Amino acid sequence: MHSFVELSAEFETYFNKRHFPVHPATLYDAAQYILKIGGKRVRPVSVLMANELFAEITTDAYSVAAAIELFHNFSLIHDDIMDKAPLRRGMETVHAKFGDSTALLAGDVMLVAAYEQLNNINHSKLHDILKLFSKTAKEVCEGQQMDMDFEKQESVSLEEYLNMITFKTSVLLAASLQLGAIIGGAGEGNQKHLYEFGKNVGIAFQIQDDYLDAFGDPEKFGKQVGGDILANKKTFLMIHALSVANAQQKEELDLLLQSNNDDKVSSVMKIYADCKVPEWATTLKEKYFNNAMKHLEELAVLNSRKAELEKLARYLLQRES
Amino acid sequence: MHSFVELSAEFETYFNKRHFPVHPATLYDAAQYILKIGGKRVRPVSVLMANELFAEITTDAYSVAAAIELFHNFSLIHDDIMDKAPLRRGMETVHAKFGDSTALLAGDVMLVAAYEQLNNINHSKLHDILKLFSKTAKEVCEGQQMDMDFEKQESVSLEEYLNMITFKTSVLLAASLQLGAIIGGAGEGNQKHLYEFGKNVGIAFQIQDDYLDAFGDPEKFGKQVGGDILANKKTFLMIHALSVANAQQKEELDLLLQSNNDDKVSSVMKIYADCKVPEWATTLKEKYFNNAMKHLEELAVLNSRKAELEKLARYLLQRES
Repeated sequence: MHSFVELSAEFETYFNKRHFPVHPATLYDAAQYILKIGGKRVRPVSVLMANELFAEITTDAYSVAAAIELFHNFSLIHDDIMDKAPLRRGMETVHAKFGDSTALLAGDVMLVAAYEQLNNINHSKLHDILKLFSKTAKEVCEGQQMDMDFEKQESVSLEEYLNMITFKTSVLLAASLQLGAIIGGAGEGNQKHLYEFGKNVGIAFQIQDDYLDAFGDPEKFGKQVGGDILANKKTFLMIHALSVANAQQKEELDLLLQSNNDDKVSSVMKIYADCKVPEWATTLKEKYFNNAMKHLEELAVLNSRKAELEKLARYLLQRES
Repeated sequence: MHSFVELSAEFETYFNKRHFPVHPATLYDAAQYILKIGGKRVRPVSVLMANELFAEITTDAYSVAAAIELFHNFSLIHDDIMDKAPLRRGMETVHAKFGDSTALLAGDVMLVAAYEQLNNINHSKLHDILKLFSKTAKEVCEGQQMDMDFEKQESVSLEEYLNMITFKTSVLLAASLQLGAIIGGAGEGNQKHLYEFGKNVGIAFQIQDDYLDAFGDPEKFGKQVGGDILANKKTFLMIHALSVANAQQKEELDLLLQSNNDDKVSSVMKIYADCKVPEWATTLKEKYFNNAMKHLEELAVLNSRKAELEKLARYLLQRES
């Protein structure tokens, strides 16, 4: 079994090439640009790791991994247009650098390129792979739409938020693992456990992300601490705080959400602390982490083969092993 | 053999259903909206007609036809965002009605839905169908990018314009026919002739479209006559006029392109007439029509089977049979 780091290097070698023709450069340079920005490549490497649980990693797994990474970048380009985001991983976003129209088209060709990668795999598995991939692709779009809808909604329930997060961010990791399992020849039961493992890790990761946005060490987190609070984002923390706050705290939160005072972040954080939001978030994250571990346990392969996936989950969720 | 009108009715029955889930309605109502606006469905019906040249029409052909129509609508939604178009077929465009972000996502899910339709076909043909479909999808995006690039380019050659038009509008009709031929079990030679037939009909159609924008009967054409001239669009007519105009005409055209006087349309039309642009355009359209007919002739099926496709070409290109 290979470690995440080893497979990450293998994938980088495979993926680090020009994926698009030269002409028209105005379109394809924009598409190529975001791929160069990089990222941790967690999803594509998960395809390889899931494959290796059941069999030697095949070239098909690399094609599927590339498709997943292209899809992920397609969704980043289009999400950044919708969110009017100026920066992505510290670099200019595609639309900021090349304009909205070219970014839109660059996303489109990236989605098509993802399907082209899938079409490289063994014909006998193509139908099943396409089916899961397209289902997931639609869910990711649905998650993004829900996220936009929430901005206009007065209140969002924890269940609604969980559902949105599951679609917007978790199903792609879940599907990556299941796709790798399909390539590796896994049975349906094992496929499902891997899918659920990925989904639960993804949700736990998002809870952690919301938590760190408020309570993280600014130097380690790499984003502005309190950014979600300043942007009035409905996060796990805010949704929970609003649901457990007493009348006075609720009124204060509602006022803070309408204000832009200098002490907005610290005032909201004070209410979070009074409402024991950090403890609640830690427990919730733990719950999803434990769910993930349960599905990993139930996977019918030798325990020794599962070690690398468990390590990856612990690494992503910042847990000491 | 069935006529275009008959197959159009069959396709409408097949296609006229809800293609998307109910939830989230904010996303899928937008996607569903454009499908209801309709259109002539020339491309999907071409899939069925090409299938029927070689064999009875199968359910696979309907799946591919639906994929083509979904893809076409995906590209319309995204093009309308880029062009900031307020109307499409006399109705509000998706982005005008639902906002840019939702329109962007509605286009995305429509493209995914197109691939889902393709995944319904017989597994033995899936790889070849996907390959041609994705190649074409990228070309359509490239054509749209070239069209946007031309707006910023000082001069565009006839060759560049032809290349752009081929990608932006003709390859989809060409591919529709070839995809139908693949489903019908045609050999490679016949596939290629059908592709070239469609490509040439598509180019001839665009020449006619550019021509009618200036010289058409406003009542029949259904668009503002002279719209391309007012928008300074580089069309077949303008590109040719600029290339054959004498020094004085050229200077006048350049001035007109910078003006917005009331007599702009009539002044440009006068130069078009002096430069014999209408005659040139008619001859050029004829050339592509004849190319199309040559490829139809070379198709190795009984002549009687080709009659409906020839009728379709003549109908699209407004030629009496």
